[in-house]
Amino acid sequence: MTGSDTSCDTNDSPWRLAARCERMNPSVIREILKLTELPGVRSLAGGLPSADTFPVDAMREATAKVLADTPREALQYAASEGFGPLREWVSAMLGAKGIAAPAERVLITNGSQQGLDLVGKVMLDAGNTVAVETPTYLGALQAFNPNEPRFSSVPSDADGPLPGAIATLPRDTRFMYVLPNFQNPTGRVIPDARRDELVAAAQRAGIPLVEDNPYGDLWYDEAPPKPLAARWGEGTLYLGSFSKVLAPGLRLGFMVCPKTLFPKLLQSKQAADLHTGSFSQRVVHEVIKNGFLDTHIPTIRDRYRTQRDAMHAALQASMPAGCEWVKPSGGMFFWLRLPAGCDAMALLPKAVAAGVAYVPGAAFYADRPDMRTMRLSFVTLSPADIADAVQRLGDVVKAHLALQPA
Amino acid sequence: MTGSDTSCDTNDSPWRLAARCERMNPSVIREILKLTELPGVRSLAGGLPSADTFPVDAMREATAKVLADTPREALQYAASEGFGPLREWVSAMLGAKGIAAPAERVLITNGSQQGLDLVGKVMLDAGNTVAVETPTYLGALQAFNPNEPRFSSVPSDADGPLPGAIATLPRDTRFMYVLPNFQNPTGRVIPDARRDELVAAAQRAGIPLVEDNPYGDLWYDEAPPKPLAARWGEGTLYLGSFSKVLAPGLRLGFMVCPKTLFPKLLQSKQAADLHTGSFSQRVVHEVIKNGFLDTHIPTIRDRYRTQRDAMHAALQASMPAGCEWVKPSGGMFFWLRLPAGCDAMALLPKAVAAGVAYVPGAAFYADRPDMRTMRLSFVTLSPADIADAVQRLGDVVKAHLALQPA
Repeated sequence: MTGSDTSCDTNDSPWRLAARCERMNPSVIREILKLTELPGVRSLAGGLPSADTFPVDAMREATAKVLADTPREALQYAASEGFGPLREWVSAMLGAKGIAAPAERVLITNGSQQGLDLVGKVMLDAGNTVAVETPTYLGALQAFNPNEPRFSSVPSDADGPLPGAIATLPRDTRFMYVLPNFQNPTGRVIPDARRDELVAAAQRAGIPLVEDNPYGDLWYDEAPPKPLAARWGEGTLYLGSFSKVLAPGLRLGFMVCPKTLFPKLLQSKQAADLHTGSFSQRVVHEVIKNGFLDTHIPTIRDRYRTQRDAMHAALQASMPAGCEWVKPSGGMFFWLRLPAGCDAMALLPKAVAAGVAYVPGAAFYADRPDMRTMRLSFVTLSPADIADAVQRLGDVVKAHLALQPA
Repeated sequence: MTGSDTSCDTNDSPWRLAARCERMNPSVIREILKLTELPGVRSLAGGLPSADTFPVDAMREATAKVLADTPREALQYAASEGFGPLREWVSAMLGAKGIAAPAERVLITNGSQQGLDLVGKVMLDAGNTVAVETPTYLGALQAFNPNEPRFSSVPSDADGPLPGAIATLPRDTRFMYVLPNFQNPTGRVIPDARRDELVAAAQRAGIPLVEDNPYGDLWYDEAPPKPLAARWGEGTLYLGSFSKVLAPGLRLGFMVCPKTLFPKLLQSKQAADLHTGSFSQRVVHEVIKNGFLDTHIPTIRDRYRTQRDAMHAALQASMPAGCEWVKPSGGMFFWLRLPAGCDAMALLPKAVAAGVAYVPGAAFYADRPDMRTMRLSFVTLSPADIADAVQRLGDVVKAHLALQPA
C-alpha cells in the first residue's frame, strides 16, 4: 500500500505511468489471499462462493446444447449490448422484483465488477465526489479509482448509511454507491423504512444511486425489502450478477442503465472489450431459461444457512467478551469487531501462524478505518472447520488481550 | 458522430456525464453493420472471421473434458493474471517468434481490445499524445479515448509509418500504437527493414511501442518479418489474440507487459473485471495445448487465401480505372482507394441500395481522413459472392463517375 513501485520512470525505461497509477496499489485482500494458501491455514478470508454449489451437470448439458445448436453464433463476435434472450431474461426477472428494466436498457457485463468500471468511466471526472457507505465494497473503490474521484464516506450504522448525512454531501457528488442486501463486508441489510428515507434524501439532494446487488438472492431468514431501483427507477442504476447464484468463473453480470446513460455505457463497454463472451452468455441462458434458478437457489440458501448458524454458534462459543457482531440474515459474511486494544491488521500474522485467516476490515473503508474490524466468510468451510477456525481465532484474540495492561 | 446525445443534463435527471463522454460516439462501423443486416445486402463491411473456421468439434471435446476434470476450478473465481498453463503456453509460443515473454509478464485479457483499454488506463494522462499510424485501427482510438489523449497521426506509406516522422512527435508522446502485420484497415505489412528503422527511431526518441498483432498468423504468401517486440523487448508492449485463429466469441487475448508496468496493468485488470473467465481460459488451453493450432491455422490460411485471390480478381475485373489497391499478403482486408471525385462515405447508401456494403475508410483516421478510401473484408463471403459483391460495387462507382463533369 506504499505506492513505492510506481517509480519506474528511470533513465533506462521509456515507459511512463499515468498519474492515476499512484492510486492503483496491490489489493490487501489479494496479498492476504496468498497468505491463506499456506498449507494448514483455514481461511475465512475468501469472498468466493462454495464450489459445491456450482451446477456442473446443468453446465455440461448447456454447453453441449449450445455447441450443437448454435456453434457459429456462440463462437462469433456479437453485439456489445449482450445476448438478446439473456437481456430479456434479466428484464423479466427484475420486473418480478418491481424494477422497470426494459431489455433495451439491460447491458451484459463481465460480472458486476465491470459494471462498476463502466459507471466510473461514464460519470466521473477527476476530483468529483463519489459517496460510499462506511465501510464499503473494496472492489468498488478500486473500480472507480482510475477516474481519480474523491470518496465521501457516508456515516452508517447497523441499518446502513444515515439518510441525514446525504444532504451534507458536496455539490459535485456524482452518485452514491450502495450495496443494500447483505453488504460486502458487513453483511448488513438496509431495512425497508431506511430505504425509503435514503431514496427521499437522495432525491432531495439530486444525487443518483448506484445499487449493487450481488447477494440479494442469498437470504436465509426472509427476502430483503424491495430494491432501491424499485423505489426510484429514474434515479437508480442497478447492477446484478450470476456469480453468487450460478458460478463466478463465467464472469457474467448485468446492469440496468438509465435511459440517458445507456448510449455512453454501451460505447464504453464496446471500447473496453467489444462484448462479453458469446459462448458464456448463451450457456448461462441455456441453463437458466426454464426456471433452473428457482430450484437451484434454495439449495444454496439451505447450505449457507447451516454454515451461517455454525459460525454464529462458534463465535458465541469461542470469542471473548467485548467482541461485537450481528448474525447476518443473508450473504456470505460476518463482520466482527474486536474489543478495544485490538488491531485486526496487526493480529493477522498471529492468526495465520495459528492456522486461521480473515480479512482485516480496514481495507473496506474509504477513509478513517476502524482497525478493530474483520470480515469472516462462512460459505467455504464446513461447519466443523468453521468451529475449529473460529476457536483458533478466539484463542489468538484472548492471548492478545491477556497481554494488555488491565 | 455529432455528440448531440450528450445533453442529458436536464433538470429532470440527476445523472451527469463525465467530460470524456463527449468523445464517446456511436461507432460508424457499428451503425454500418446494422445497415448490412438488411436482407439482400452482401456485406464486405464485417471485421468478423469466417464461422466456417471455428473448431466446433475441438471445442465440444474440450468443454466436456474441462467440466469432467476440473469443474470446481473452471467455474470459480481465479487469479487476475490468468490461468497459469495458458500463460505458459503464450510464453512458449511467443518465445518461438523471438519474443522474450516470461509467463510472469503475460496477462490474459478479454480479447486484445481489453489490453488496449488497460494500456490507456495505465499510461495516459489527459492531454498526452498517442502516436498512431495513418490510418489506424478504429477500436484502438476508442479504447484510448476515455483517457482523453491527443492523437498524432504519423505519416505513413504502403510500408507503414515513416520512421523520419517519429523524431518530430511531441515530447509528451507516451507511446506509439502499431499494428505491423496485415493491418486493420489497410492490410499492409511493415517490411523487415522498415521495422528496424522504426524501432531505431523510437529508441532515439524514447517513445515506447505498443504492438498489436491479431492477424500475424494469417499469412498467405510468406510469414511476416519478426515482431517489433523481438527487436526492442524492453520498449515494446505486445498484444495478441485468439479471436482470429480460434474464435472471437470466447473473448480471449493476452498481453506481454514490460516489467515496470506489469503490477499496474494487473491492478488495472483486477479493478476492471477481476479476471477473464476461468472456464473460457481452461477450454481454450485444452483445445490448443497439444499443437492443435499447428494444423488448424493452415486450414484457415488456405481458405482465406482463396478468398483473397477471388477478391483481387474481382477488383481487377470490376473496378474502373483510377481505383488503387494493393493485394494484401495476409489478414482479412483489402484497402481500396477510389478515383478523384469519389467520397466513399457519400457513396455508401447507393452501394447498400445496390446490395453491397463496405466500411468507409474515413472512420480509421485519427485526423484528416482520406474520403476516397474504403475497407473490404474478403473472409466472410464465398468467392462467387465476392465476385458478385465487387461487381455491384464497381457498377456503383462507375455510375457515380459517369455523372462527374469531364
